[in-house]
Amino acid sequence: MKITTMFSHPLSQLSLDETNLARDVIVACHPDAVLDFRMIFLLEPPKAEVVEYLNLEHTQKLTHDTRRPQRLAQARYDVIGENKLKAPEYHESVIDLISGRRVAHEVVGSEHHASLTLPNSSEFETLVNVCKKSDWFQEKLAQFKLPEGFEVVIEPWPYGGGEAQDKQTRFFQGLIFARDTRSGNPDTNFYAFPLPLIPIMDAHKREVVRIEELATGGKGEQLTGKTHAANAVDHCRASEYVPELLPNGVRKGLKPLTVLQPEGPSFTVTDGNLVQWQKWSMRVTFNPREGAVIHDVRFDDRSILYRLSMSDMTVPYADPRPPFHRKQAFDFGDGALGDTMNNLTLGCDCLGLIKYFDGVLIDSSGTATPTKNVICLHEQDSGINWKHTNWRTGRAVLSRRRELVIQFIITLANYEYIFAFRFDQSAAITLESRATGIVSVVNIDPDKTSPYGTVVSPGVLAQNHQHIFCARIDPAIDGHSNTLIQEDTLPLPIDARKNPHGNAYEIRKTPIPTSTPLDACPSTNRVFKIINPHKTNPISRNPVAYKFAPLPTQLLLAHPNSIQAHRAAFAQRHLWLTKFKDDELYAAGRYTLQSRREIGGVSDAAARNDDVLDADLVLWCVFGLTHNPRVEDWPVMPVEVMQLKLVPADFFVANPAIDVPVVRDVHSVTMEGCCAGVEMMKNGD
Amino acid sequence: MKITTMFSHPLSQLSLDETNLARDVIVACHPDAVLDFRMIFLLEPPKAEVVEYLNLEHTQKLTHDTRRPQRLAQARYDVIGENKLKAPEYHESVIDLISGRRVAHEVVGSEHHASLTLPNSSEFETLVNVCKKSDWFQEKLAQFKLPEGFEVVIEPWPYGGGEAQDKQTRFFQGLIFARDTRSGNPDTNFYAFPLPLIPIMDAHKREVVRIEELATGGKGEQLTGKTHAANAVDHCRASEYVPELLPNGVRKGLKPLTVLQPEGPSFTVTDGNLVQWQKWSMRVTFNPREGAVIHDVRFDDRSILYRLSMSDMTVPYADPRPPFHRKQAFDFGDGALGDTMNNLTLGCDCLGLIKYFDGVLIDSSGTATPTKNVICLHEQDSGINWKHTNWRTGRAVLSRRRELVIQFIITLANYEYIFAFRFDQSAAITLESRATGIVSVVNIDPDKTSPYGTVVSPGVLAQNHQHIFCARIDPAIDGHSNTLIQEDTLPLPIDARKNPHGNAYEIRKTPIPTSTPLDACPSTNRVFKIINPHKTNPISRNPVAYKFAPLPTQLLLAHPNSIQAHRAAFAQRHLWLTKFKDDELYAAGRYTLQSRREIGGVSDAAARNDDVLDADLVLWCVFGLTHNPRVEDWPVMPVEVMQLKLVPADFFVANPAIDVPVVRDVHSVTMEGCCAGVEMMKNGD
Repeated sequence: MKITTMFSHPLSQLSLDETNLARDVIVACHPDAVLDFRMIFLLEPPKAEVVEYLNLEHTQKLTHDTRRPQRLAQARYDVIGENKLKAPEYHESVIDLISGRRVAHEVVGSEHHASLTLPNSSEFETLVNVCKKSDWFQEKLAQFKLPEGFEVVIEPWPYGGGEAQDKQTRFFQGLIFARDTRSGNPDTNFYAFPLPLIPIMDAHKREVVRIEELATGGKGEQLTGKTHAANAVDHCRASEYVPELLPNGVRKGLKPLTVLQPEGPSFTVTDGNLVQWQKWSMRVTFNPREGAVIHDVRFDDRSILYRLSMSDMTVPYADPRPPFHRKQAFDFGDGALGDTMNNLTLGCDCLGLIKYFDGVLIDSSGTATPTKNVICLHEQDSGINWKHTNWRTGRAVLSRRRELVIQFIITLANYEYIFAFRFDQSAAITLESRATGIVSVVNIDPDKTSPYGTVVSPGVLAQNHQHIFCARIDPAIDGHSNTLIQEDTLPLPIDARKNPHGNAYEIRKTPIPTSTPLDACPSTNRVFKIINPHKTNPISRNPVAYKFAPLPTQLLLAHPNSIQAHRAAFAQRHLWLTKFKDDELYAAGRYTLQSRREIGGVSDAAARNDDVLDADLVLWCVFGLTHNPRVEDWPVMPVEVMQLKLVPADFFVANPAIDVPVVRDVHSVTMEGCCAGVEMMKNGD
Repeated sequence: MKITTMFSHPLSQLSLDETNLARDVIVACHPDAVLDFRMIFLLEPPKAEVVEYLNLEHTQKLTHDTRRPQRLAQARYDVIGENKLKAPEYHESVIDLISGRRVAHEVVGSEHHASLTLPNSSEFETLVNVCKKSDWFQEKLAQFKLPEGFEVVIEPWPYGGGEAQDKQTRFFQGLIFARDTRSGNPDTNFYAFPLPLIPIMDAHKREVVRIEELATGGKGEQLTGKTHAANAVDHCRASEYVPELLPNGVRKGLKPLTVLQPEGPSFTVTDGNLVQWQKWSMRVTFNPREGAVIHDVRFDDRSILYRLSMSDMTVPYADPRPPFHRKQAFDFGDGALGDTMNNLTLGCDCLGLIKYFDGVLIDSSGTATPTKNVICLHEQDSGINWKHTNWRTGRAVLSRRRELVIQFIITLANYEYIFAFRFDQSAAITLESRATGIVSVVNIDPDKTSPYGTVVSPGVLAQNHQHIFCARIDPAIDGHSNTLIQEDTLPLPIDARKNPHGNAYEIRKTPIPTSTPLDACPSTNRVFKIINPHKTNPISRNPVAYKFAPLPTQLLLAHPNSIQAHRAAFAQRHLWLTKFKDDELYAAGRYTLQSRREIGGVSDAAARNDDVLDADLVLWCVFGLTHNPRVEDWPVMPVEVMQLKLVPADFFVANPAIDVPVVRDVHSVTMEGCCAGVEMMKNGD
């Protein structure tokens, strides 16, 4: 295998060739073993090396002789020994792609579980096959009399947080549904017919080792009451979302609305991943653990962020009936995020002129394959950005807000998340997540209701749950030495000398000296400013800064002593401030699958009590959604949107969008001008 | 004057003819007086009469014989007596337009001030003229040596909350700036050159009665220290926003982005103001006190809201240096809102296919004149609404979110607000306000900074302030008898029987029995559900409801004993629940101009302790923005956006948007497909 000597940018994702080279090195390191690969992707070079490189790059001092940062791949794989009864060993290695050598190697101990694999030869697929072949499971299934034409569907899930005695064993669980096959349409919605069984597989033995029979009772019934009848889905009813299956078809009357950019995009994409748009520049990469990652974000060539990503999220369910306490996903950390990323479709996932980015995945042999269109980039209009009318002259000056949107979408079994990083002309950055898809449901007996969720369709209980996200922001405000200031706006007492009329308030600024968790506080208008203490705004004399208000959404509700809480320490505070450390990227830790507590996550990082004044900081922003379902969330829920906004605060010397052209869109038209045929009477006639 | 016998819909705004008829009736009632009109607009008929009418209308039972609700106009005007030394009396009358008779008449006592008038023969214009003619003021001005080619600009403001002894006198104040006239461009930005003077006019005597000299000092200086020099604006510098005056011109590289609706709009507007779109129906009217008002909001012909409006807002400033404690505007209540509403421009204020609505204003003689394009209506794409990918079949089903937006924009001297009511296909309603325009500024000496604001341009201090809005929601959830439920999501203790694994949480529902203020509480995921206790969702068995989470933004910071707080009791709680009362529409009371406390506002309404279980409710949602300015807010600030969302909660039997067609926009194009000329290398090469 020959790798071109002209490597990509140090921050660019591994190419297909680089990925395969990494595989070859690993295969050569384990000549006598069978290997089962889980992931191969870029190990970003040490930040010190990258920063040096970026400084040269942005001052046009790169030459052919410039020492380049290391080009490293990280490989995660199982080594399957000759003794098939022994569980495979999970290994992690680092490969230097220049020298073609392994430079680090670790056998991960049994205190951790490797992340799961999808979709080919995957552990999820194995679960389905094992269940199908299990006489025990088939016997359990046989207790149910399914309606004519229905088949059983097994929906694989991570096992969640196991019991202490489970620790050494790798488990997966399946939720079970029935699907109506009579129409011949493969997309009938099986979630509308939940069966009250959960088979559990030992992933090494490939055996069903336990089958949970689920309570299907309602309000006032015991947690473990099994009350379902053989015809447990007879009271359920079809809940289709695929257009051709809708009983009344799709609605009429929605006229097309089209976005046209006749002169092309306002952005350029060069060097594979360098995006430039409206004074912004950044690099966009894919990796199979975080999805889209944004690097080296600058505005007018001033550094703002070193790196921006979604780090992890957790979705704990609040139904206390065992085994639902184990329904808790870490959608990024549990594995195979890259495989869950949607291959986006032109004209659907976004409108207008789209640039797609591909990713690289591997199969179980470590062979690289491209995954197409996993990230999209486009511009959108976002309403008025600024306006002022001089009432003396009547002149209105108005500029619209154009945004650059980088988006990816993941599907986790029933559920989807749409993540977007939005950059605007005012130099603000918005992180957006939209939650949609199909809520997770279980069977409930006819005519019952439950305190643990909402009956969204007959026989279908959508359980109460939370979605708690963590975005990782690695700032570089005019450089890599920054300080975090907590700024609260507080009332003041009336005071003859200082506040005689009681209208004054105080802005209290508190620098945060050591790594620590922090909280939102909207009642004090709390914002956090990431300042560069060495650079002063020449106008305001304040240090240059970007600011944000943590979203004050509800934090993890699970009891602090619960396994849900132990696994997701990150989800218990709104903001974590840590000191940068290479490869410390994952809020809930590197290993979340079947974890029993958060290890190596942000809570451990903050606990180092690092000095973070005038230091290389990382901010971890936690926000979420307590989702007590509505009937309107069924069968596919309308998006719930959350947005976290980073804005400049005395970083610039004026509104950075003040020079955006004031354009009148000549294609806009009045209703009267457009459609003479529409009945319309003049207002007030 | 002849009025057509075919009156408009009972909720429609007064026509030009109806307005003039009301004026004629009033003029006839005061044969010997000179009248100075302030406002004439519809007095909405008693709700009981309208509801009866709407019930017939929506069941197609209206006939020619149907008894129509009263058609009433309210007129507000000054009666100027023969004794010019005596202050004019402020009157309010109600005119029955069918009979052509005055049916109510009140001389408003001197405890209240009438709202101000704009722009023709207005009190603001009077202030400017009085200042120009005042020798005293001109003498004060003469202390300043303005740069060559600069002229003085007087910016009229409401007086704010006066002292107790001021109560009987009607005052206005002026902020003073210098404007560079040298370019000949009338739109040079005078706000960049503030002069430290505030003249105060007695509006009846039309005399300058006081001239405040403003402190211009900085940190550590006494509140009343006057330190400015004669050349107080020499250290200021041009801060232009009009494109042709930008020193470096406008930026290049922003390519056009156009919205096309080639088949026309998806909405219809009939009967003057009846808007129908995607199962929604509503009536849109203008009035000069609240701007756009939305009435009789239904989805699939089920009633959701009786009325929706922005009720009022207050903008208190936090600079303790007298007289800045009197900088406190009530942008709706202080008057002339209708005149401040922007006449919107095609292709600028919104894109695509626009329906504009006109309003009716009057001049001081009471004569009606149309004001064009004060409200606009259009559709917009708002990203993905719902999506699900079946990973078994690979089929992604996705529906985009189309919204109907009703928007109006007001300019208050330096500042603008953009208000929008957004309706989507999932039956959600979003109230949006965007704050933009030019921050209010005062002079500051060279090289000083201040705890009371931010220096946004040399010599220019943007004072700290708040914007606190109140939206009025008059719900009609499947009828007019509703109950408000406070719903908190709370953690639970671990309990062997009820919560053995600690993952459960509790949803606690608290009906609110009497009219009262309430608060946001994001830490308990607090939502309020407006339920109809008589209608049960057949699926979930919950009462049908709409829900919302009050925005947990910071409330009024001014000390409870301050005049700012007394005037704006509404701004001290996030939510007020009251029992409906005809013509009780204004959160801060009917008379805010120069008020000393909130009278007849929502705090008084809530204090009635009305029984509101299963009653006709009104909800007053308070949200806002503590605005400690950034340099980036200068010279015109990027919008600060706030959104309050009302969503159905078990109101429907499924996602109301599930039948929205899944459409692929055929005009979307990949970057590669669009622009072969753009340099681009394939990802990973």
